[in-house]
Amino acid sequence: MSEDELEAQNQADVIFNKFKEHSIAEFFKKNKQMLGYSGMAHSMVTIVHEYVTNSLDACEEAGILPNLYVKISNYGKNKYVIEVADNGPGIPKKFIGKALATILAGTKFSSYKQQRGQQGIGAAGCTLFSNITAGKPIHVKSSTGKEAYECDISINIITNEPEITNLSTLDLSTPKGLTVSGTFGEIMYEKGEKGVYEYLRRTALTNPHAEITFIDPSDEKSIFPRAINAIPKKPKEVKPHPLGLSVNDLIEFSQLSQNKNISGFLQSSFTRISPKKIEEIRSMCDVDLDKQPKDLTWDDAEKLIDVFKRINWVAPESSSISTIGKSQIKIAVENILNPDYITIVDRKPKVFYGGIPFIIEAAIAIGGNSGKKNDEMDYAGNVMRFANKVPLLFDSGSCAITEAVKSISWKRYSIDIEKQPISIMVNMSSIYIPYSGVGKESIQQDSDIVNEIKSALMDCARSMMHYIKGNERDKIELTKYKTVIRYVDHLSQDLSEISGMDKDMIKDKLVKNIQKHYYGKSNDEEKSVN
Amino acid sequence: MSEDELEAQNQADVIFNKFKEHSIAEFFKKNKQMLGYSGMAHSMVTIVHEYVTNSLDACEEAGILPNLYVKISNYGKNKYVIEVADNGPGIPKKFIGKALATILAGTKFSSYKQQRGQQGIGAAGCTLFSNITAGKPIHVKSSTGKEAYECDISINIITNEPEITNLSTLDLSTPKGLTVSGTFGEIMYEKGEKGVYEYLRRTALTNPHAEITFIDPSDEKSIFPRAINAIPKKPKEVKPHPLGLSVNDLIEFSQLSQNKNISGFLQSSFTRISPKKIEEIRSMCDVDLDKQPKDLTWDDAEKLIDVFKRINWVAPESSSISTIGKSQIKIAVENILNPDYITIVDRKPKVFYGGIPFIIEAAIAIGGNSGKKNDEMDYAGNVMRFANKVPLLFDSGSCAITEAVKSISWKRYSIDIEKQPISIMVNMSSIYIPYSGVGKESIQQDSDIVNEIKSALMDCARSMMHYIKGNERDKIELTKYKTVIRYVDHLSQDLSEISGMDKDMIKDKLVKNIQKHYYGKSNDEEKSVN
Repeated sequence: MSEDELEAQNQADVIFNKFKEHSIAEFFKKNKQMLGYSGMAHSMVTIVHEYVTNSLDACEEAGILPNLYVKISNYGKNKYVIEVADNGPGIPKKFIGKALATILAGTKFSSYKQQRGQQGIGAAGCTLFSNITAGKPIHVKSSTGKEAYECDISINIITNEPEITNLSTLDLSTPKGLTVSGTFGEIMYEKGEKGVYEYLRRTALTNPHAEITFIDPSDEKSIFPRAINAIPKKPKEVKPHPLGLSVNDLIEFSQLSQNKNISGFLQSSFTRISPKKIEEIRSMCDVDLDKQPKDLTWDDAEKLIDVFKRINWVAPESSSISTIGKSQIKIAVENILNPDYITIVDRKPKVFYGGIPFIIEAAIAIGGNSGKKNDEMDYAGNVMRFANKVPLLFDSGSCAITEAVKSISWKRYSIDIEKQPISIMVNMSSIYIPYSGVGKESIQQDSDIVNEIKSALMDCARSMMHYIKGNERDKIELTKYKTVIRYVDHLSQDLSEISGMDKDMIKDKLVKNIQKHYYGKSNDEEKSVN
Repeated sequence: MSEDELEAQNQADVIFNKFKEHSIAEFFKKNKQMLGYSGMAHSMVTIVHEYVTNSLDACEEAGILPNLYVKISNYGKNKYVIEVADNGPGIPKKFIGKALATILAGTKFSSYKQQRGQQGIGAAGCTLFSNITAGKPIHVKSSTGKEAYECDISINIITNEPEITNLSTLDLSTPKGLTVSGTFGEIMYEKGEKGVYEYLRRTALTNPHAEITFIDPSDEKSIFPRAINAIPKKPKEVKPHPLGLSVNDLIEFSQLSQNKNISGFLQSSFTRISPKKIEEIRSMCDVDLDKQPKDLTWDDAEKLIDVFKRINWVAPESSSISTIGKSQIKIAVENILNPDYITIVDRKPKVFYGGIPFIIEAAIAIGGNSGKKNDEMDYAGNVMRFANKVPLLFDSGSCAITEAVKSISWKRYSIDIEKQPISIMVNMSSIYIPYSGVGKESIQQDSDIVNEIKSALMDCARSMMHYIKGNERDKIELTKYKTVIRYVDHLSQDLSEISGMDKDMIKDKLVKNIQKHYYGKSNDEEKSVN
């Protein structure tokens, strides 16, 4: 064997001697843009979003009316301390490290119910980001009613394990809830449409049962008061609908099943599968439904999924979907935007991907604090996008809501979204929101979803058109009225001279008649318009 | 204590009883779009890309001229078998499971050198995708010269551990290399600009040292032959430049240092830090450079990074950057596009993010197989984007290369990229490519990068303009020549009648004179134009 050959033979060994495994924390350290840490202003909103979302979910789960407190203080160039406190259930001591400093650990990952957070990454991602941009641990205070404590938490990036220091017990009288406070670098506080204030304002809009207090870096305090005292229904865990399953899902569920046979497994694991449906399935394929679930093969599963697609199903249950509600939206919008007029539409549940139910709520508000001021300080319309009540501020270009808004001929409805002080608001609620990007800032442009949003917005637009046209008619009448009334004084004078009657009496009668003709408008109103 | 209070106290316990940890495999199963599995055509290209990239990297590392074989066969509706074989170093048996079925395991994650793959996700991601879309393991054949074997590999999604079955030893005479073959669902074979054929054609373009054979689903065979027999330099591992470091990087490097003091640590861990620079650093901040590296605090590191930004550095080393090379591009483009004219620019290294070196190579080709056919089968220009020689087919909208192409007034250079058969090719080479998305399909629109690409393309465009204008001038002259020559016969006749001289003789002399005047064109050329 030549030296060359010998060398060549060992190449693989040489190369693979450098072989290493890496933790998910290392991965996200290198790929932090995947967690929403891209750009300094975006990164700041991401941090607030993660903590606020967790607080709202925890309060909802525990049936508590949330009081949130968010404070941002400057701490050097592109460095801030962010504190978020809630009155939620708190986190038990034995889970605090995993909850705040282990990526991919949490209570929500595989649960089939509607929640804001989904994957057990958010808060641990914040800890990671604080550690690598400011070199500091996160400070935590928690009181569950059974135990109260505070501590510092870091994440060991090599192992994805929590490191807890300075743990001390607090008095049990400490009010229930969780307070997290961290120092973060490479972030920036921004006002305007993509800043924390706007994020919290919109959060208040879709969570009228929450009270949110915000202290900005200049120490200015804003309170978004609670508009409704009703606690939203606790999200309900439901069984998946057969139409929403992939072959692999079916295999995975079957592995976990305790049932004796596949027919029992199908009926107990999924919704809408009755004994009658089982007979229908039997007649449509040759899969042996009497064998054990663990013996379900990939081929069997493929056949079953194929049958599922051909059966007529009762629509998936939508009681699991937690919307904001029409009356709540009205109260919240009046509370925050104080508009001249608002039109709200809540529609029936629909499905996307063949079997996943979702509900669209849409509203259009005009006047008051609706819309946004553009660079020339003129008013312009704005679009507020929400998924499960969470405001989406970034990546609007790839979002189903943007697509639907763009597809509507607004001028047909006498609406000019470029120039009128209009706020368009859309909330999509579902157990599973199909985000198009990784930052969870936009909804996939699936045609079922886009069309449903479009229909909802067109319903709103029609009603808004009647208001706007009515308003225009009013203005025209008012102009005519003002034109006529201008001559009353002269006319009364002339009539008085001709008839010898008292001028003031004539004028008074004329004005009353004219007012009656033009919608009974009073002089006060006239004055207020001049 | 009331019942309500008692219940409330236990809420946290109830909620956190559902607490679970999840594997990175589970995470990517739920978020497969993060790995490039979004859309059926894109998913297919992703699979081919991952395997081809690994093969090219392995051959480069081992100093082997790559022979790649890619075969795609249909296997049912939206289901295909994909096989990729190489003549690389193979993978030792003890690493095969980790290499192909453990996400975040690999040899490349933390190495500071230029490679196509980076994170140890690609091939394991393919295994995961095959498992969840087709329920089948990946089949592997490997021969390293020291051992040869074949086996089936799956990934245990719950644990992110490999599962190896059907392992058998092969004869040691099995040619060296790796063959992977997998069944994949939810994918689609597409022709055109975003398909596998185009991906491989472009890979051949930037890797002229590779021979690539492709068998498509209709059993059609394409060979992209090797254009150059030189093996590219092995990528060199280099030390980071101080300007490319974050505070956290500095802390992490210091923890791993074996040096006795910080001054030694800085000199041995980073490039361009000399004893003289150490003195400069000392004079600019109060960090004690004589203490142990492990005692470097976050504050110290912040001060050092601040000093690094204020020092005048020698530019970062760029010898580590492996480009394609001007002459190689020429040979490769002639080999594959066979254009009428090509202009190539290779520029000096530049830096982005303050300290990361990169090199742009650009080429513009016209005629031959350049450009693409559009829907009306007219020719149109196309832009071929590459990062470290890897073709980028998707997400062009957010890419620095697209941005640079858009920013150029092509008409000034007499180039119409909408209508001419033109191929614009840009390759960015760097140890660290700043991808804008997760799918690694587009380069961040950093202004340093965009401007450098723009300069390179403008250089190319100028040279192309001379060719095009020269061509146009030629055409104009030819038209004049043809116009004049049309009268030669008549004129010769008339002159012959007037002078009594032989008509043919006169004609011959006239034609020669006219030809001389118009660039010495021959009758042959005239004919070829008519």
